[in-house]
Amino acid sequence: MGNTIRIGIVGYGNLGKGVLQAIEQNKDMQAVAVFTRRNPTDLHIDNSNVEAVHLSELEKYKGKIDVMILCGGSATDLPEQGPSIAKLFNTVDSYDTHAEIPQYFAAVNEAAEASGNTSVISVGWDPGLFSLNRMLTEAVLPNGETYTFWGKGLSQGHSDAVRRVDGVKAGVQYTLPNESAMDRVRSGENPTLETAEKHKRKCYVVAEEGVDKAKIEHDIKTMPHYFVDYDTSVTFITEEELREKHSKMPHGGFVIHSGKTGNDEHNQIIEFSLKLESNPEFTASVLVAYARAAYRLNKEGQVGAKTLYDVPPGLLSQRTPEQLRKDYL
Amino acid sequence: MGNTIRIGIVGYGNLGKGVLQAIEQNKDMQAVAVFTRRNPTDLHIDNSNVEAVHLSELEKYKGKIDVMILCGGSATDLPEQGPSIAKLFNTVDSYDTHAEIPQYFAAVNEAAEASGNTSVISVGWDPGLFSLNRMLTEAVLPNGETYTFWGKGLSQGHSDAVRRVDGVKAGVQYTLPNESAMDRVRSGENPTLETAEKHKRKCYVVAEEGVDKAKIEHDIKTMPHYFVDYDTSVTFITEEELREKHSKMPHGGFVIHSGKTGNDEHNQIIEFSLKLESNPEFTASVLVAYARAAYRLNKEGQVGAKTLYDVPPGLLSQRTPEQLRKDYL
Repeated sequence: MGNTIRIGIVGYGNLGKGVLQAIEQNKDMQAVAVFTRRNPTDLHIDNSNVEAVHLSELEKYKGKIDVMILCGGSATDLPEQGPSIAKLFNTVDSYDTHAEIPQYFAAVNEAAEASGNTSVISVGWDPGLFSLNRMLTEAVLPNGETYTFWGKGLSQGHSDAVRRVDGVKAGVQYTLPNESAMDRVRSGENPTLETAEKHKRKCYVVAEEGVDKAKIEHDIKTMPHYFVDYDTSVTFITEEELREKHSKMPHGGFVIHSGKTGNDEHNQIIEFSLKLESNPEFTASVLVAYARAAYRLNKEGQVGAKTLYDVPPGLLSQRTPEQLRKDYL
Repeated sequence: MGNTIRIGIVGYGNLGKGVLQAIEQNKDMQAVAVFTRRNPTDLHIDNSNVEAVHLSELEKYKGKIDVMILCGGSATDLPEQGPSIAKLFNTVDSYDTHAEIPQYFAAVNEAAEASGNTSVISVGWDPGLFSLNRMLTEAVLPNGETYTFWGKGLSQGHSDAVRRVDGVKAGVQYTLPNESAMDRVRSGENPTLETAEKHKRKCYVVAEEGVDKAKIEHDIKTMPHYFVDYDTSVTFITEEELREKHSKMPHGGFVIHSGKTGNDEHNQIIEFSLKLESNPEFTASVLVAYARAAYRLNKEGQVGAKTLYDVPPGLLSQRTPEQLRKDYL
């Protein structure tokens, strides 16, 4: 500790911007450069100490950056960037295609191990802190069930689906946890619950002029996969209202583990929840804490791909192990 | 992994009994023996595969036990047993005298390092999972405040204080979080709160026959340190009601971290909570999961004293790293 950790940011969308802001809250870190596929002069970075650099120049920063935080998307950016940048730098990313994580881990691990770098993958809140709690609570109470509820949160995929409906000019969709399902879980009942029983969907829609709103509502509520199985509500609003009240990116959710101890006689409930006014800024904050851990793991010679499960929690903290034992235990 | 982890239990009060029951939920573990200062034949252990052994015979179990779970108290048992047993075995304990943790850590570390053993200290929920969340949430959102609320829970110390009041035959005291203080924290207000503002105290008292109940209530509510600063209620009940409704050991609480991101504009709330019907059985379950980690850390050559901050979370799980990545991330 003591040294400033030099950070590079790859990608400058909402997540990359959040990372830059989060680094300013961590006095042991410094943002060096933002890498982009766009024209670097178009980025308009608030902090004049941070360079905007074309992605093709990345390799020139070897030795000048300790950890690259990869802020691209999981669909196309990270499958390519994760392994290729792990060949050059320690990395942290928020890869979130759950089904493909084993393959992604293997590809990043091969690149990072070969070059002596450390890469922490799939960091954020889900995957991320929620995953940590799912694992931890089951390890402590193996005789139990774990439930994940999402919301209240803006869902990008479902908002896109709403906007594709005929006659819809603009709109957003919020996923909400079903309170009565949560109460059943919190009571220790251990119910079997499908995703659709755990969540509700609320749509706020701006309709095109003169269209049939009843038809729009019907089209949304019966949309396969996205809405048909859910308790869905559709509210029509004006463009002004959409802009004023629905332009933020809130999200959150709950991981609830309900276990039994003794001779199955005592209910024990563990709950972890997030209520986030800005989803990308929170994900960015988690990435930055794990960048500190990646740097320290690498200093200890722990190379290759890692997940949150491999990282001793103390490595995330700005504080020394002595301080943590004295003031936080 | 694959090998059965052989566990010894030192002390057979509520915590030791909880550890024995928790081990039965973990199929990669086996309880070998319970060690006691009492006459071993007096223990009445339910499981006939588990020996009852006098504490003086502990050393004979070297090579037969992988991890000793120390279930004694923090006031007098652990300061002596922690270092002395760490010379012989890997250990896990729930040392909870917050102010003395640095000294205790040093003593256990010296003993464990010298003998090549691994000792995880101060495991449970506070210190324990609450400590982990206090540290983790501050690392992720350094621009914020962390609040710990306890309850609803039976407090042993405060129950003892109630029972010492003149005219009190029996009684219990519950600590409750102050809901309005919690709501202020959850709103992102970041208030300054004293312990007394965060909690309420509820006493259930059986009075001796013919005594002045008003005086008892007054004596409790004005007791220095324990009650005078708190919103305290006193309810008189019968012995039957005390036995029927107040013989369990529930506890729990909340760690709430309220941070800001962006240009201080977005509130981000992280909350971790426990609702436990049996405090000792839950603490025991955490100890057992960390016994698995102690065993694995020792196999990796990581010797000396450790806290939760030093333990990669994946080491707590019965599952392999591959399973965790595939099914839990």
